[in-house]
Amino acid sequence: MDNRPIGIFDSGVGGLTVAKEIYRALPNESTIYLGDTARIPYGPRSPDIIIRFSHQIVSFLITQNVKAIIVACSTASALALASLKKSFSIPLYGMIETTTQSASLATKNGHIAVIGTKGTINSHAFKNCLTRLNPNHKILEQACPLLVPVIEEGIFDGPILTQILSKYLFPLQTFKPDTLILGCTHYPLIASAISQFFSNDPTLINPGEALASSLIESLPEKLRAKSCPKPIHQYYTTDKPEYFNRIAEQFLPHHHFPTKQISI
Amino acid sequence: MDNRPIGIFDSGVGGLTVAKEIYRALPNESTIYLGDTARIPYGPRSPDIIIRFSHQIVSFLITQNVKAIIVACSTASALALASLKKSFSIPLYGMIETTTQSASLATKNGHIAVIGTKGTINSHAFKNCLTRLNPNHKILEQACPLLVPVIEEGIFDGPILTQILSKYLFPLQTFKPDTLILGCTHYPLIASAISQFFSNDPTLINPGEALASSLIESLPEKLRAKSCPKPIHQYYTTDKPEYFNRIAEQFLPHHHFPTKQISI
Repeated sequence: MDNRPIGIFDSGVGGLTVAKEIYRALPNESTIYLGDTARIPYGPRSPDIIIRFSHQIVSFLITQNVKAIIVACSTASALALASLKKSFSIPLYGMIETTTQSASLATKNGHIAVIGTKGTINSHAFKNCLTRLNPNHKILEQACPLLVPVIEEGIFDGPILTQILSKYLFPLQTFKPDTLILGCTHYPLIASAISQFFSNDPTLINPGEALASSLIESLPEKLRAKSCPKPIHQYYTTDKPEYFNRIAEQFLPHHHFPTKQISI
Repeated sequence: MDNRPIGIFDSGVGGLTVAKEIYRALPNESTIYLGDTARIPYGPRSPDIIIRFSHQIVSFLITQNVKAIIVACSTASALALASLKKSFSIPLYGMIETTTQSASLATKNGHIAVIGTKGTINSHAFKNCLTRLNPNHKILEQACPLLVPVIEEGIFDGPILTQILSKYLFPLQTFKPDTLILGCTHYPLIASAISQFFSNDPTLINPGEALASSLIESLPEKLRAKSCPKPIHQYYTTDKPEYFNRIAEQFLPHHHFPTKQISI
């Protein structure tokens, strides 16, 4: 039994789509969420920078006495997880493996599309992992750099989002994917707008759902909070909390956000 | 006579609209441009963070032996210039004063609109300065948070920009400004798309033009490069230069960008 919290981090609000699934799948677990809002977005930045930011955040979360860390950001998972695992002994979980396993199980025609930030797509992390699972999969990748800024503005539908999605998703329509990986933890917030672009109703793979389901099995027994009376969810941001809270409250209603600002 | 370079900084490519006007107005001057691309965008961040970033950059530019510094970012000018002037003795020039002087001279009906990032608009820096110049000015401010991400993606026209501009500029149309301050140094890159939204053809005030014109007068005589044989323009970014160069080359064609990455 280990009632210490699980650390979760992302560049901003996107990782809350992962946190939400963890709260649901592991209801006894306390968590500490860190949104690196002072340095969002991660997507367009180069690997060295993402690795540096991720190391700083993991070091901070370890000082907060977490027992495991979820890299709830696909860009950081794609670019920094391997480096983090070399430097830190704490259990670390990223978004790529569990998401690709879900997609590989879901597809029937083997056509899997991946959308993500520029950093994630340029890394080919999802594609490489899917190909390792099954070399016969046909994979089409598409970077969607404007989606994170739009979601962070609280835009989840309407004409601006439609125009941006047209630009990015139109090239995917002829590929006819039956499975679409939402390869950025922000994207589940616009899942219904994304669905509308496809006539064949592909299965959308939500990285948070995939990770939380897998965590039910894979979190070591000795790290589980078995009898925590009431789990505590703490939130930290690196810029002022007001803006984070405004979007977070839309996404996790009936939830308290006594968010604290920290400097890392 | 002083042939040392002038330092210029912005969060990304936007400040090149200022650099371009300085090259034109002061053709003997060498420059060092720094785009803080690892931490772009500045607009949505809070004042404390912008002040910290700006102090770091000014310290770096001083180590590069610059003789004066242009804060070629309206957000940093609005939020950090006063603090920078307290901490550093080097001559510092921001975007707010010269831009508002140009606008105040240009307006005939006294209706001046200001568009800018969230940080700039929330500071009311342009509005306060315009009111000091003439308390009878009517001023309407509008934050346009998605414009910097869109411009940094190299989108200068087309349906995505049109939808985003509709959202932001529609509320300005009934105000009928005869003068519109492009209150972010990125915006001159989309000046023609902005113009099309107004039937009364308002005068667009470009902060770079306003600053460069004023600098012809205000740069102290002893700091001028009078006989520099060939000015040198150097470029630094805090993330990898490729991305900066791609946009910069679109904007300053026939120009060399041997951009170097630095860590500050």
